[in-house]
Formats: sequence, C-alpha cells, structure tokens
Amino acid sequence: MMNKDFLNNKIADFENSNTLVQNIKGKSFNAKELAGFIDHTLLKADATRLEIVNLCNEAKKYGFASVCVNPCNVELCSKELFGSTVKVCSVIGFPLGANETSVKIDETEMALTTGAQEIDMVINIGRLKDDDQSYVLTEISSIAELCHKNNALLKVIIETALLNDEEKVLSCLLAIEAKADFVKTSTGFSKSGANIRDVAMMKFSVGDKAKVKASGGVRSYEDAVLMILNGASRLGTSSGINIVEKSISHSNY
Amino acid sequence: MMNKDFLNNKIADFENSNTLVQNIKGKSFNAKELAGFIDHTLLKADATRLEIVNLCNEAKKYGFASVCVNPCNVELCSKELFGSTVKVCSVIGFPLGANETSVKIDETEMALTTGAQEIDMVINIGRLKDDDQSYVLTEISSIAELCHKNNALLKVIIETALLNDEEKVLSCLLAIEAKADFVKTSTGFSKSGANIRDVAMMKFSVGDKAKVKASGGVRSYEDAVLMILNGASRLGTSSGINIVEKSISHSNY
Repeated sequence: MMNKDFLNNKIADFENSNTLVQNIKGKSFNAKELAGFIDHTLLKADATRLEIVNLCNEAKKYGFASVCVNPCNVELCSKELFGSTVKVCSVIGFPLGANETSVKIDETEMALTTGAQEIDMVINIGRLKDDDQSYVLTEISSIAELCHKNNALLKVIIETALLNDEEKVLSCLLAIEAKADFVKTSTGFSKSGANIRDVAMMKFSVGDKAKVKASGGVRSYEDAVLMILNGASRLGTSSGINIVEKSISHSNY
Repeated sequence: MMNKDFLNNKIADFENSNTLVQNIKGKSFNAKELAGFIDHTLLKADATRLEIVNLCNEAKKYGFASVCVNPCNVELCSKELFGSTVKVCSVIGFPLGANETSVKIDETEMALTTGAQEIDMVINIGRLKDDDQSYVLTEISSIAELCHKNNALLKVIIETALLNDEEKVLSCLLAIEAKADFVKTSTGFSKSGANIRDVAMMKFSVGDKAKVKASGGVRSYEDAVLMILNGASRLGTSSGINIVEKSISHSNY
C-alpha cells in the first residue's frame, strides 16, 4: 500500500533530478535503429483484413519491432508474420480497461493462443481512482504471470491523460511490483497521448525494473527521438513509416 | 447473404417512404414517459465506485429504464438497484468491437452472472467492412442466444459513424436475423453519435422485428423527442436528468 507522502516524495525527487530532455539537438538515429523501437499500430475499429495484411508487410519491409492490433486480428498477423523477426502485439481490455479481471485474463489467454508475443493491457482506471491498489495490483499480476508463462512481454497502459501525477507514479510502481515488462503511456483513444514529461517521470518511477512505451500522438521523427531521449524504449504509433523515412532524410545531413 | 442490389433497394424504399420527422412541433412527453426511454449511462474509463452509486440513485429517483455501465461495475449496480424497477445494462466488446467472438461470449456470460439484464454489444465492424456477413451474423446469434436463455435483452451497436448506408442497413438486417432485440446507433466513443436519419433508416430496416436505441450526442429534451418521433424506443445518454428536467418545464407551457 503506497501512501500519498511516499508518492509525492517520488514526484519531488523526479522534479529535482532535472532529467527532462527538451530538444533533440545533436542526437540522431538512423532508419534501422529507429525501426527497432516501433510498434507498428492499427487499432481502429473498422480495420479490414486487407489493411492488416498491409500493416504486416510494411512491418517486415521496415523491420519494425512489432505490429500492434486488436485481438480479432492476432491470428491473421501471426500467419502473415510467420518466420519474420516482427512480433505480434495485441491489446487487452482496450481501450477503457473497465472489464472484469477474469475477462481480461480470458482475452489474454486467447491472444497468446492465437499467436501474440506481446500484450498491451489497460489497467482498471476507475479502481485506481478509488485507490483500490490491491485490485489494480492483483489484476496486473495475474496477467503478467500468464504472459511470462508463455514467454510473452506485458506492457501496462496507464492512460496518463486521465491521471494526476500521484496516480501516474502509483500505477508505475504497481506495474513493477506486478512484474510487468513495460509501462505504456496511452491508448491513443483518450483526450491526449504521450508527452515527454510523463515519459521521463514514468522512466524515473520504474527505474531499471521496467521499460517505457510512449504512445498516442507520436507522429514525427522529432517526436520519436525526443521520446527515446526521455527514456522510451518502444514507441506505439501509426506513423512509423513517416518517422523512419524522415530519419533517412535526416541522416543525409 | 445479402447483396448490394437488395440493400440499395431497401435504401431507396426508405428514401421514398418520407418517414423522416424533422421537428418536434406539437409533440411533447412528460417526465415520467420520457424517463422510461432512458438508459442512464456512465461509460467513461475513470468512473469511480462513488460515481456509479450516484448513477444508480439518480436512476431510481427519476425512474430511468436502466443504468448502462462498463462490465466491472455491473455487480455494484446490481446490488444498488436490487428491488427497484431499474435494469442493469452492460456493454460488451466495447467500444471497438474488435475482440474475438469467444471473448465477447465470455464477457457476456460474466455480465449476466453478475446481474446484467440488458447487453449492449458492439459488432465486429472490420468484418462487416470485409463483407464477412457470416462472421457478423454468427457472432450476434451466439450472444443473442445466451442473452435470451438468461431472460436478458440484446442490443446490437452498429456504430453508424463508421458505416455507409449499405453497411447500416446490412448490419440491421443481420441483427434481426440473429434475433437481437434492439439495434443501437453508437458507442459514443466514435466520430459522431445518433442522428435522426440513421434512426429512421434503422427503424425502417428492422420493422417490427426489433427496436431502435439512439445513443451518442443525445443531450437535450428536443434531441430526445426527435429521436423518439423517428422510431427510437430507447435513448442512451449521460444527460438523462437534464432531458427529464426540461420535459417537466416543457409540460408547464
């Protein structure tokens, strides 16, 4: 049980650490490096099978880390990406996170069975607001255990747009206590997406116990590099091709 | 299997029927009548238990048809509403509809077990776009059967904002073939919500085989009455109190 004082001290430590990187001056990444950070993402409700196949082909061509899709498209991606280095990532309890824990577990099981190697789950944000830490922790733990038993990674979406600083830090600490592999900023379906302060604060909160995925509104080469410089190890974006193409033109300078 | 010609004839028949009601002139509803149309709705990801309890108390006070909540809040509502006439309505595969059918079934089962008496499910919009009518029909049928076995109603959300006219009519026809009780316009989480033309076209499409629920953007007394005059039997809204209070002032004229 983490109390307000503890969380506020953490936030003060972060502010005093001056870790925020405000611009990308002097830093650059080439296309191949950058592609390895990207979860090539298509989560819109009306995505067709053809669009999903195209997504997979693009991911193979550019060497993205994964494709990130809704559960009903996992099996198709798994088939399309067979034999490639591109992983299949699926979202769970997405995008509201307000499902019963047992249903999130069923959904994770189904996704792993049909070929997902990475799972991006949304926490129960209402229960976090209720300060029901035990509920949030238990839910993440159950899914982390299931993922790890199946050699899959778990990323925990905290939906920063709906949280205050205390809640952001708290959810990061619960995620590492539950042994999640990543904390992730956003679903891309709420009021706003990733910003550099949240990414830096999340990295500061989890330390070396987890990685950070920045997602939502990451659209340009500059966005991508700034997120990485502030501690992101993965980027969730539907603009991966644009980002990588810009890194190529950038490296020509 | 319904083909394009058949669907386009249906749309032409609707246009020729001139059933659209453009204004509420001369029609009015009192507070009690109107309350019976309303699913008092709170679906935001960060809803707390306290907000859910308040929602239930409001629903009892005003005599709304149901409260419409995310699955993790069904059990609490069921407890709060015990002994009242207000039903518990839960959303399934919400709001993207892009879950595996088996997971939507699990989620429905869980919601019915914890006390839901009405189920608002989102169709798989991508599969509708693929023209995989069999997939969409089978999914709705499975959930309809499960609901009816448990004396619950099924409302099928077609998310009109993402569909063209053919797809709107097609999804209505599939819903009645699958024995759904209602077709419902919107999740409230997409680009737009209910409009009167869609409501009238949906009512024309389902005839007396199902009812229509208008949801998304229904905020005023005028909105509510217009939707009803165009064929809606239920209104999904978070502005139920405002709508009913306005009907009271309206009836004082």
